[in-house]
Amino acid sequence: MHILIIGAAGMVGRKLAERLAAEGGLAGRKIERVSLVDVVAPVAPAGASFEVETRAVDIAAPYIASKLVASKPDVIFHLAAIVSGEAEADFDKGYAINLDGTRHLFEAIRQQNLKAAGGYKPRVVFTSSVAVFGAPFHEAISDEFFHTPLTSYGTQKAIGELLLSDYSRKGFLDGIGIRLPTVCVRPGKPNLAASGFFSNIIREPLAGHEAVLPVADTVRHWHTSPRSAVGFLLHAATLDGGKVGPRRNLTMPGVSVTVAEQIEALRRVAGDKVVARIKRKPDETIMRIVEGWPRNFDPQRALALGFKTEASFDDIIRVHIEDELGGKIG
Amino acid sequence: MHILIIGAAGMVGRKLAERLAAEGGLAGRKIERVSLVDVVAPVAPAGASFEVETRAVDIAAPYIASKLVASKPDVIFHLAAIVSGEAEADFDKGYAINLDGTRHLFEAIRQQNLKAAGGYKPRVVFTSSVAVFGAPFHEAISDEFFHTPLTSYGTQKAIGELLLSDYSRKGFLDGIGIRLPTVCVRPGKPNLAASGFFSNIIREPLAGHEAVLPVADTVRHWHTSPRSAVGFLLHAATLDGGKVGPRRNLTMPGVSVTVAEQIEALRRVAGDKVVARIKRKPDETIMRIVEGWPRNFDPQRALALGFKTEASFDDIIRVHIEDELGGKIG
Repeated sequence: MHILIIGAAGMVGRKLAERLAAEGGLAGRKIERVSLVDVVAPVAPAGASFEVETRAVDIAAPYIASKLVASKPDVIFHLAAIVSGEAEADFDKGYAINLDGTRHLFEAIRQQNLKAAGGYKPRVVFTSSVAVFGAPFHEAISDEFFHTPLTSYGTQKAIGELLLSDYSRKGFLDGIGIRLPTVCVRPGKPNLAASGFFSNIIREPLAGHEAVLPVADTVRHWHTSPRSAVGFLLHAATLDGGKVGPRRNLTMPGVSVTVAEQIEALRRVAGDKVVARIKRKPDETIMRIVEGWPRNFDPQRALALGFKTEASFDDIIRVHIEDELGGKIG
Repeated sequence: MHILIIGAAGMVGRKLAERLAAEGGLAGRKIERVSLVDVVAPVAPAGASFEVETRAVDIAAPYIASKLVASKPDVIFHLAAIVSGEAEADFDKGYAINLDGTRHLFEAIRQQNLKAAGGYKPRVVFTSSVAVFGAPFHEAISDEFFHTPLTSYGTQKAIGELLLSDYSRKGFLDGIGIRLPTVCVRPGKPNLAASGFFSNIIREPLAGHEAVLPVADTVRHWHTSPRSAVGFLLHAATLDGGKVGPRRNLTMPGVSVTVAEQIEALRRVAGDKVVARIKRKPDETIMRIVEGWPRNFDPQRALALGFKTEASFDDIIRVHIEDELGGKIG
């Protein structure tokens, strides 16, 4: 089995490659080869029993997609994207990478499919986002709620979803789109994304550092752990397409909590001393951005199809301590 | 005022140009010039008090859109599309015209907007379709129901809607997307489109000819007259964008009736002798296609914004008799 990961240098892509290396197979089939590509060369996972190739490519260039699929990978994970803030600031770049890059990929697969007279039809796992939804929302967004994104990033992801469904319906590829919740706790340095504080207020105090909370603790949001995000990708890669039907894009399960509930979970898991490292410093800009974000979902289809996430935010914190801190709190 | 109609050779485009010629103005402003373009040269409407230019162009070619908007029309009606059946049969052509053609147009307007430092922001009226919806549906589809098209045409229209909203949100243009019901009674020859029979069973008997009904008379569908379709376009052209908000695409009102109700309306308006010209001849293929079509909507937003259609199918038939048959039944 040959697996291609586009966007393999990002946090989720890197963890996906590490998980594949640890497991050595997918759905009972041995992995022979994994191709990792991104705008910068991805790092090969340690201890892989399969061949690994890494390449730095510009996925906005049409001829790149043809090269990537020329070797007919069995499973393609398409994680590459310009993030929300950058796609909003650079309109052309966002459309070039997030829309054209995705379309070139699907089109390159279609050309291989046509050449092979239908004999090539890879599973394509496309990471979409809850950014396809735009306020005002119902209290818990249903699987049938419409897509009225309020960012170019969300628009580009919603278009990617439509293309994925149409190319799947026509039999050119076998796609599953998954809308990831905010991935929390993100490892690494505090980041300047407007959503960064959701992770910062957990990760930094656990590591012995102070963290800034820029919004009211009544703010509610939708979370999953990096481990579950990788789990979604693997489950999507092996899911029976017939059970999914023509509606190929799914809102992933998550944990809906307020910031106050995040903090209480941190107190239960790590104690008052750790929680005391969170400093409240309201930021009007971030508060206004967060206002338009979805708070809660009712992802019945994904749950029925067997996608799983943590049962509580306490568990999300425990996953971080296990996977990033070697089980120890600083 | 300068108005550009792209797709002006089609039935709705032609009627729109005729209505503009009859009225001479739009929203109280005098029309100075109307540009009519399509893949074949459109016919100029008779008796226009404004300058009319007609051109045959290929809207899939990127440089064409730049030429069309170089003169900065105040209102642009974008009606051009490859129809559903052809977009399904010719995947590349459908995407080239319906997706790329639309995107090139919006992008050409954006370039003019950037050059004019925001001083150019035309109202763009984009005709979308109820084909953005795919079965299974609720009994009456709400304004918040999601878009899971089951055709490439519906996919391309749904993408056009997303682009229209994003370009509007960014201030590059001022777009309104309108999802037209099936336009009935279509004038002209019987047509081979799967939806053709909805018009054929009214138009042909009224003209003294037999017509074939290929589906059960329990089939329910969503209709508006050609006159109302033109009314939607004019209303969309003059609507206050501030009242519409960021959700720029609207399901238009229509009349939801079964085929049996269509036939009873025809009997009330034109009598038993006319109805007797309808011959039942079931067609499995058409029955299967129609199965996936929407039947009824609850278009609250469009109604609140002042879009109007006929009150009954009887009125739809009367509009046809007035507008196409000079008030006389054959």
